[in-house]
Amino acid sequence: MRKSEKISNAVIRRLPRYRRRLGELMRKDITRISSKEFSEILGYTASQIRQDLNNFGGFGQQGYGYNVKELHEQISKILGITREYSVVIVGSNHMGQAIANYSYYKSAGFVITGMFDINLELIGTEISGIKVKDFSELDDFLAKNKVDVGVICTNKESAQRVAEKLQKGGVKGIWNFAPVDLVVDENIQVENVHLSDSLHTLIYFMNQDSGE
Amino acid sequence: MRKSEKISNAVIRRLPRYRRRLGELMRKDITRISSKEFSEILGYTASQIRQDLNNFGGFGQQGYGYNVKELHEQISKILGITREYSVVIVGSNHMGQAIANYSYYKSAGFVITGMFDINLELIGTEISGIKVKDFSELDDFLAKNKVDVGVICTNKESAQRVAEKLQKGGVKGIWNFAPVDLVVDENIQVENVHLSDSLHTLIYFMNQDSGE
Repeated sequence: MRKSEKISNAVIRRLPRYRRRLGELMRKDITRISSKEFSEILGYTASQIRQDLNNFGGFGQQGYGYNVKELHEQISKILGITREYSVVIVGSNHMGQAIANYSYYKSAGFVITGMFDINLELIGTEISGIKVKDFSELDDFLAKNKVDVGVICTNKESAQRVAEKLQKGGVKGIWNFAPVDLVVDENIQVENVHLSDSLHTLIYFMNQDSGE
Repeated sequence: MRKSEKISNAVIRRLPRYRRRLGELMRKDITRISSKEFSEILGYTASQIRQDLNNFGGFGQQGYGYNVKELHEQISKILGITREYSVVIVGSNHMGQAIANYSYYKSAGFVITGMFDINLELIGTEISGIKVKDFSELDDFLAKNKVDVGVICTNKESAQRVAEKLQKGGVKGIWNFAPVDLVVDENIQVENVHLSDSLHTLIYFMNQDSGE
């Protein structure tokens, strides 16, 4: 059994938010936070937070609350954000460039080691300090370099073929921005960012609200 | 009571995916699909799909399955994707440009009516056919034009201030790409795309898998 099956996905998806908020507190030099205050910042009940963290042993202390830095470290450990991850971006047009320029990575251990495209106008240009390579070089690049994560920023027609190349090249995780659900082996993790789904959800809730 | 409180968020978040898959079937000229085939395409059980759709009256027929075009239309109606929505993008750097160039909108009734930035190098340039305006013109623009959705692609330091301006200007929904949780009135809907949270979730599941 996978370890991930023990803890519900909903709990896992809340952890990055916990960590993000703790990071903000650290930048404000706040070292300790009561479970009540933490609950207000997060918008979850104190009991929800306690339950979530109890999945990993629990980190708060009765009457003390949470040690901000310690909890941040623990959650980073749980998530695995404690080492460098090598990332390639396939598709170097607008979304690929936005991802490459997303300044957050540098501080969090993500190193973009390659960018690829099929567009001759993009190949050879430099994006955020990385020279875009010809997509035909991807197989060779993956054979020679250990890459952890492949980001797919192509159109939906190309995405599946790219995913198969990434899988063959030993990538363990795919961060998919193409509006298509990829078919890959079970040992490859796929995290989709389906922007149109997100926008449609927003529209739904907007319409519910205006209908009051 | 809001209508949205009656149906669970999880159901709502699955609807755009249903619609997306139905759109793919339509493009392949498939007019009818059995609940079993639809279940295989979606990766949900037939019973889950039935339960989800029953929230809205149910659309399948025993022994027939689903009429693809009809179900697509019904889900579009439920989501409210049946009219044009006016969208402004605040923050016209990399992510803003990626959003402006996301070709999906044009086919789905989203019209980008304005782009804004504070960067003098961006103001006046054209992105996907839209001239970037000075951020100081936003209030005036919102007063003169009915805007439904504001997209925030600024850094996290500016995002809250932008959200307040959008709210004051009558925007009903905010699509937020800044890595910060916004505080707005209850009648404004916010949909966050927190890319770092998504990436961290991917890393967690990758590590669970490699730990087998």
